[in-house]
Amino acid sequence: MVRLIALFSTPEDPAAFDAHYRDVHAPIVRRYPKLRGLSVTKPDGVGGRPSPFHLLAEMRFDSRADLDEALASDPGRESGRDLRSFAGAGVSLIIADDASAADG
Amino acid sequence: MVRLIALFSTPEDPAAFDAHYRDVHAPIVRRYPKLRGLSVTKPDGVGGRPSPFHLLAEMRFDSRADLDEALASDPGRESGRDLRSFAGAGVSLIIADDASAADG
Repeated sequence: MVRLIALFSTPEDPAAFDAHYRDVHAPIVRRYPKLRGLSVTKPDGVGGRPSPFHLLAEMRFDSRADLDEALASDPGRESGRDLRSFAGAGVSLIIADDASAADG
Repeated sequence: MVRLIALFSTPEDPAAFDAHYRDVHAPIVRRYPKLRGLSVTKPDGVGGRPSPFHLLAEMRFDSRADLDEALASDPGRESGRDLRSFAGAGVSLIIADDASAADG
């Protein structure tokens, strides 16, 4: 499994952000070709500190090639444009290849 | 499943960081009571940009109570102290309760 992980910084207006993510952004992501799943979590902080991120979105694919194909697709490009319209507080995007993960 | 997720910013000396993580920090984490698994990944960036994080470590537990117990345990406190000794570039810690995740 390969994951595209998006970590959204806390927005100025969390309610408006959540509505946009749910009603506009997630429906675009769900149109990614070969998407195996989308999980959206509101993370907690640790040790009484607030979470540095408001929202954690994980998009799962069978392979890195499938993920790259999704990002290059029409919905992939559309989601990139949409990010710029509502994620002004910042978003960190990473790709984690779980097949390469070291298990402890 | 509940995950404690650590996102490490890129250190000044990545080789020294990796050696410390592997030889000192991970062995402490593996002593957490009720730890179900530790996965360590070197994430890639997206769209040709470098990853904003050098290392992604995910610690899995059956429940939030187990996670809290691990952090309050001797190895939990030891790992917190150890973080301050090698993660000077910064580490973002979040807790993701996958049972609460919305599936898209």
